[in-house]
Amino acid sequence: MVRFLNFVSVLEDVATKDLQELENNVEQAIGEDKFIYEACAPLINGGKRLRPVLFLLCAKSRGEISAEKTLPLATALELIHTASLVHDDILDSAKKRRGVPTINSKYGAQISVLVGDFLFAKAFQLVAEGQYSAQIDTILSKLVKNLCVGEIMQDRALFTVPTISEYYDRINLKTAVFLSTCCRLGGIVAEMDQKDVESLASYGTSLGLAFQIIDDVLDFFGDEKVTGKKIGGDIKSGVVNLPVIRALSVSDESDVLREIVTRREVTDSDIDDAIEIIKNTDAVEYCKMRADGHIDSARLSLPFLIKTSVEIALEQIADFVVDRTW
Amino acid sequence: MVRFLNFVSVLEDVATKDLQELENNVEQAIGEDKFIYEACAPLINGGKRLRPVLFLLCAKSRGEISAEKTLPLATALELIHTASLVHDDILDSAKKRRGVPTINSKYGAQISVLVGDFLFAKAFQLVAEGQYSAQIDTILSKLVKNLCVGEIMQDRALFTVPTISEYYDRINLKTAVFLSTCCRLGGIVAEMDQKDVESLASYGTSLGLAFQIIDDVLDFFGDEKVTGKKIGGDIKSGVVNLPVIRALSVSDESDVLREIVTRREVTDSDIDDAIEIIKNTDAVEYCKMRADGHIDSARLSLPFLIKTSVEIALEQIADFVVDRTW
Repeated sequence: MVRFLNFVSVLEDVATKDLQELENNVEQAIGEDKFIYEACAPLINGGKRLRPVLFLLCAKSRGEISAEKTLPLATALELIHTASLVHDDILDSAKKRRGVPTINSKYGAQISVLVGDFLFAKAFQLVAEGQYSAQIDTILSKLVKNLCVGEIMQDRALFTVPTISEYYDRINLKTAVFLSTCCRLGGIVAEMDQKDVESLASYGTSLGLAFQIIDDVLDFFGDEKVTGKKIGGDIKSGVVNLPVIRALSVSDESDVLREIVTRREVTDSDIDDAIEIIKNTDAVEYCKMRADGHIDSARLSLPFLIKTSVEIALEQIADFVVDRTW
Repeated sequence: MVRFLNFVSVLEDVATKDLQELENNVEQAIGEDKFIYEACAPLINGGKRLRPVLFLLCAKSRGEISAEKTLPLATALELIHTASLVHDDILDSAKKRRGVPTINSKYGAQISVLVGDFLFAKAFQLVAEGQYSAQIDTILSKLVKNLCVGEIMQDRALFTVPTISEYYDRINLKTAVFLSTCCRLGGIVAEMDQKDVESLASYGTSLGLAFQIIDDVLDFFGDEKVTGKKIGGDIKSGVVNLPVIRALSVSDESDVLREIVTRREVTDSDIDDAIEIIKNTDAVEYCKMRADGHIDSARLSLPFLIKTSVEIALEQIADFVVDRTW
């Protein structure tokens, strides 16, 4: 959280108190079971809190709003995100996430499944106890379903090269729908009209597309110490991401690259070769241009007449998403 | 469903129509995604529908009740149960469940995780759309949390011999809480008073304890063709169950048995040896006596003044639970 505040300076004014309460609530939620706390805390501590922050900001679009209306849902969103990461890591070759060992590498698949299930269930419990409307419950459960469908889509297409449109379908379900849902829920909780809620949701979708594209770039060109993940993880797990898709369509060495990304076993030296091939193309620039485009759309989507400080924060988040190194 | 009706004859009068609608609803819920449908349908088709049946019967304790009030929740309960089975099978050595290949053996761990997550999420969506009270949402999410805590408890104690009281803690969280919750939810939906709801919940707890004890016996002495599971699965996965606990305390060969059940790799011949040792003790009789005791408690727990046909059905279910071969 503190890390995130460095990048989105205005957040300090808008949501410092909420974010502190969010930390307490998350801590309390996972603290219900000692073992689950020990398993999750290191992972949770390293998060950006992007999803609850988006929700909180959008919930404050029209002015102050009580913590009872926002905190349970903000906490639930972070728990759902964490649960999906824990489940993602089960068959991922990655040993680390956010700079710490994955729950899977530490405790094995069965415990990862159960810890993730617990977090999902706890999220739904918080929402039930928060007395939100059935509409909000429905949106949340559909969100989790969409995450699953997106991941299943990804899993069934591992080690194959998607078209750009298949790629977008996947990152939409995997990432953009989640950020969009956070913004949408904020608008609903703030009792904004349908049109403005849709505008906030649109902002979230575009932000999410940009976020995932930058994630793809960082997977090859990030600094492991900063991202907390090993370089080339996507290739290892068979996920063909945007830099690869672009390089395949423009590189002279696309045959070599294609052979590497569709092979089920790759060495570190294969990954180095792939990175070299990608680096010799405009793939990174291409991805950044696409991400920039989505960020411009995100900004344009913001509804009129939202609190200036919220608007600035949402714009700073948009900048952070494309400029980030982690 | 039809299989179950053979054992609980009075169900035909009480709930045939509901059970048919339940089948349609379950079908529709998993049919939302073609892949998920293909993955789940064989598993779901082989279920007893014990959980939704208990819920439906308890919901009818006072008389007729509209399908809108019961069906979404009945469907959700079956989906939650299925989700937990799918997640259970991930690290289980078993290749079959209900006579068909597990999703894990067919599609791998990642898909199993996601299919389970989808089913959990779909269950919560049905409940949200069913406009149930926040109390019911809370009960359901706590149920899922309890299942996780029970499974984590089991997972962390694999290949060790529990005390009887640790054994009961585990089967309570793993099985009895679920059946109890189904009965409790039925009572709540029927708007029964607190005392009667607790009585129904008690019936469910006792029934669940008996159910799990008989499951333990069937794990060693069931007919694979009838149970749909391979003999000795618990030993293979390191779960030390009641027949073993009893045999360890009375057998002359308890050292041999202890060595087998605490070893991480066992052969089919080890399992045969274990079964032989158990068979030479009173373990099966002991388990059946305990199960019978719980069934008697279950019957005694039933509240006064419930519809006669419901009472008969709940008693028939109690008989089925101890006499069953599958």
